[in-house]
Amino acid sequence: MHIAILTFDGFNELDSLIALGILNRVKKPDWCVSIACPSPEVTSMNGVTLEAQCALEDAAHADAVIIGSGMKTREVVADAALMARMKLDPSRQLLGAQCSGTLILAKLGLLRDVPACTDLTTKPWVEEAGVLVLNHLFFFARANVATAGGCLASQYLAAWVIAQLEGVDAARDAMHYVAPVGEKEAYVERAMKKHRAVSHGERRRMM
Amino acid sequence: MHIAILTFDGFNELDSLIALGILNRVKKPDWCVSIACPSPEVTSMNGVTLEAQCALEDAAHADAVIIGSGMKTREVVADAALMARMKLDPSRQLLGAQCSGTLILAKLGLLRDVPACTDLTTKPWVEEAGVLVLNHLFFFARANVATAGGCLASQYLAAWVIAQLEGVDAARDAMHYVAPVGEKEAYVERAMKKHRAVSHGERRRMM
Repeated sequence: MHIAILTFDGFNELDSLIALGILNRVKKPDWCVSIACPSPEVTSMNGVTLEAQCALEDAAHADAVIIGSGMKTREVVADAALMARMKLDPSRQLLGAQCSGTLILAKLGLLRDVPACTDLTTKPWVEEAGVLVLNHLFFFARANVATAGGCLASQYLAAWVIAQLEGVDAARDAMHYVAPVGEKEAYVERAMKKHRAVSHGERRRMM
Repeated sequence: MHIAILTFDGFNELDSLIALGILNRVKKPDWCVSIACPSPEVTSMNGVTLEAQCALEDAAHADAVIIGSGMKTREVVADAALMARMKLDPSRQLLGAQCSGTLILAKLGLLRDVPACTDLTTKPWVEEAGVLVLNHLFFFARANVATAGGCLASQYLAAWVIAQLEGVDAARDAMHYVAPVGEKEAYVERAMKKHRAVSHGERRRMM
């Protein structure tokens, strides 16, 4: 089971690395979470340089893909060669996007029939791409595609991926581990309540 | 204003990078947040390699220091040469520690009169170091020293540092920006309520 977190130059550390940290709470030998980048290294919006764990192209073969956000996403979607390197397919992959990552999903044509969440800055660009943005909502999933808005909403994307791939109990366990001491039950309930709310009647079995 | 986030091999991405992302929401020309490491590169508990933004020794001159956690913290505290590189002083610096970072603060002798928060795994080692651990509490601050327990409690440490150095409004703004869309007020209130609760009667002016 491979989950690729697409991470570009100018990336937002919260989006890519909260997802990575929570997803890695699943401790199974066949569970692999990777930062997937277009180059061997990427540098964040705040100057943190990290090494890619796999190539952007590897996401095509992943079981789940999370697209992180960043301050250069409009440059990403304007770069046809870069966009062509992302071969994503919701009929065989879980696809999640966070904040400006939603713009990438939109421009890849993967949000044609799905309303989406994003951050307030990205909202007009996603709307311009012809996608309905859900105001005041931080997470929405339909079938195999989910989007989230607001950096710390990355926890909900990660919980959704775990729930879909490993089950609700595994998602609860992961959220319980990372939640603040003394707030663990509240964090788990908030994440799983949202999961139930958005998934009810919308979930589709992975193939 | 320099805030150093001490980050060691085996680090927990959530602890160091949530703090970094939130602290960097303060947009002032003299505000600088750095990942401070004992080596030019460090690799996280989940195999993410990142470049140091400053040296461990630079934390001695920082206005605030946050000690992140990781899976090798017991090796850090057992390494006298490494421990000697951290010259921290709560009389002139804000000092925060997260999860196993609390063990480093304890072993540096900086929690002699301060009860502390940490994660459940680190708790017995912090107690063994002679420090009272506050069960079921994710954040505690007294004067210039604060500790937090549970990965996502790093948001409270970051908010505390901003509130102390730049004021409560700046902390509210930072939390508002990073919170999930639709949950922003709840996140801000939770962070600031805890801040008020722990700071009341405990705050000391920075020198």
